[in-house]
Amino acid sequence: MTFASLSDVRAAFHALPTANADALAGAQDRNGQLTKPPAALGRLEDLAIWFASWQGNAKPSLSQPQMVVFAGNHGVAASGVSAFPAEVTVQMVANFEHGGAAINQLCKAFGTRLDVHALDLETPTQDFTQAAALSDADFVAAWNTGWNAVDPSADLFMTGEMGIGNTTPAAAVCAALFGGTADAWVGRGTGVDDAGLQRKIDVVDAGLALHKDQAEDPLDCLRRLGGRELVAMAASILRARHESIPVLMDGFICTAAAAVLEQQQKGALDHVQAAHLSAEGAHRKVLDALGKDPILSLGLRLGEGSGAALAVGTLKGAIACHSGMATFAEAGVAAG
Amino acid sequence: MTFASLSDVRAAFHALPTANADALAGAQDRNGQLTKPPAALGRLEDLAIWFASWQGNAKPSLSQPQMVVFAGNHGVAASGVSAFPAEVTVQMVANFEHGGAAINQLCKAFGTRLDVHALDLETPTQDFTQAAALSDADFVAAWNTGWNAVDPSADLFMTGEMGIGNTTPAAAVCAALFGGTADAWVGRGTGVDDAGLQRKIDVVDAGLALHKDQAEDPLDCLRRLGGRELVAMAASILRARHESIPVLMDGFICTAAAAVLEQQQKGALDHVQAAHLSAEGAHRKVLDALGKDPILSLGLRLGEGSGAALAVGTLKGAIACHSGMATFAEAGVAAG
Repeated sequence: MTFASLSDVRAAFHALPTANADALAGAQDRNGQLTKPPAALGRLEDLAIWFASWQGNAKPSLSQPQMVVFAGNHGVAASGVSAFPAEVTVQMVANFEHGGAAINQLCKAFGTRLDVHALDLETPTQDFTQAAALSDADFVAAWNTGWNAVDPSADLFMTGEMGIGNTTPAAAVCAALFGGTADAWVGRGTGVDDAGLQRKIDVVDAGLALHKDQAEDPLDCLRRLGGRELVAMAASILRARHESIPVLMDGFICTAAAAVLEQQQKGALDHVQAAHLSAEGAHRKVLDALGKDPILSLGLRLGEGSGAALAVGTLKGAIACHSGMATFAEAGVAAG
Repeated sequence: MTFASLSDVRAAFHALPTANADALAGAQDRNGQLTKPPAALGRLEDLAIWFASWQGNAKPSLSQPQMVVFAGNHGVAASGVSAFPAEVTVQMVANFEHGGAAINQLCKAFGTRLDVHALDLETPTQDFTQAAALSDADFVAAWNTGWNAVDPSADLFMTGEMGIGNTTPAAAVCAALFGGTADAWVGRGTGVDDAGLQRKIDVVDAGLALHKDQAEDPLDCLRRLGGRELVAMAASILRARHESIPVLMDGFICTAAAAVLEQQQKGALDHVQAAHLSAEGAHRKVLDALGKDPILSLGLRLGEGSGAALAVGTLKGAIACHSGMATFAEAGVAAG
């Protein structure tokens, strides 16, 4: 499918599939019969039931997880908002392609297919303190890449990113969506010092001053303040929804992109669980705004989709218990 | 090896191996060269370095994890301290043997070998409100089973338990080790109601009144207030230390058993990481007393070793990153 315009994109928010009510009820019923005290597997039970409801199967399986990493470059990177130079984006894409990055190891560890899409790295977005980061045409191009990157036969979808400087647009998008000044949304990213942190705050405040009142809607906020990889991530998460594929959402940047969907259309993230809580301070704030409780909290702040890729292990454990355990009747165990 | 007496057991706390300092330094050095911002993998970095230091390999691998579940029955179960009848212990052992329990699924999901040892289930411990739970001979027998259950070729060790009523002896052991009255250490276990909770508190207070001032040392607290599966768990964790095998520690009952080791000999748990935070309230209290920070916090309160078995996935991810990632030099990435 190819989107031709922003109004095409807006139309993709209509008639979103919902979870399968029969599979949900069946999974809840099965969960109550398994050989364990009620609720003794805690969050694992919720995860398995959620997954069952989107797979449409009361006894689901997880065998074809897909991770797609999108990479983009940012005009604002020239303002000294990152501890790393902008050429690291293309260098890390090569590292992904050669199998040397954290995301490669995490995908391999849990049998996850990994795809990488580099989005016009030679053409950074416009500096959003001067102009919209992306034209309508650039936005739609990135959206198409994201939308078409999802394998409809995947049974779990995740998306990650690489883009030197991209905690700055992510913070700007969050501030535009949820309000507040830049300092509430800006953090140290890959590890900027105090001066770098102040530059990030100034850049985000300048971007908000230029765009906030002009943006037509959350999607337009993403176009003005975001970047190609954020647009592609948002598109891929919405595509997964149209395919009824459940999603594990990565850290701050992924959550900022996903938040655009929820603010554009309430309920658009019903198929999404938050994989982890990032060490980037504002991540908790966006998750709270979205009502998402992170599965893991291990102080990760790498990006690449690493937190989501790691949480696949936990989700696999949850599904293995739900679908593999004996019931009290099958095992001849007294139910208490 | 066979222990003949409690003084033999006490001697096993001498000359404990320490982590390999060269492997520790080598792993820290390697961690600093990997293609990621410093500390961006958070807790995963600490876990990989800890694991490397006990494996004695700066670039470690994890391929032979072992889980041993010990089952025991408890005299205090007759006092109505559990939501389940005591015959469920033997029924659940059969469920483990037939592959139907949560622990079977979690071990299978992450390639963990699972062994199950039922410890004299037909002979519950003495009711500790009336006498010591175990005689010296019974203690030593359970210790020997635990000690010899560890496969010296395993590269990660975990232990879990099954024993209807065993949050009560675990709470009693914690109270004896760390002080405080029963109500600070007793929780709802598999889900007792308010009356059951009060019975647990009364039983633990009665046990403390009878034994606390008579116990010679932490091991003797374990003999008087514990149970066979707790003794075997403690023995197996100490054996793993003698083999320099790192350990992921399960929830409240496992932590109570392990705490005996640390209180008997400071540093005895240096090879141990806390796998998860149980929903059993006092678990946090024991972990804090031991200075252990749980890797996962998912509201589990099942026992069986389930939290530790689940955390194997996270540890595998940590080790995969550490040992599989390219360095900045190898990948030609600018180090920022």
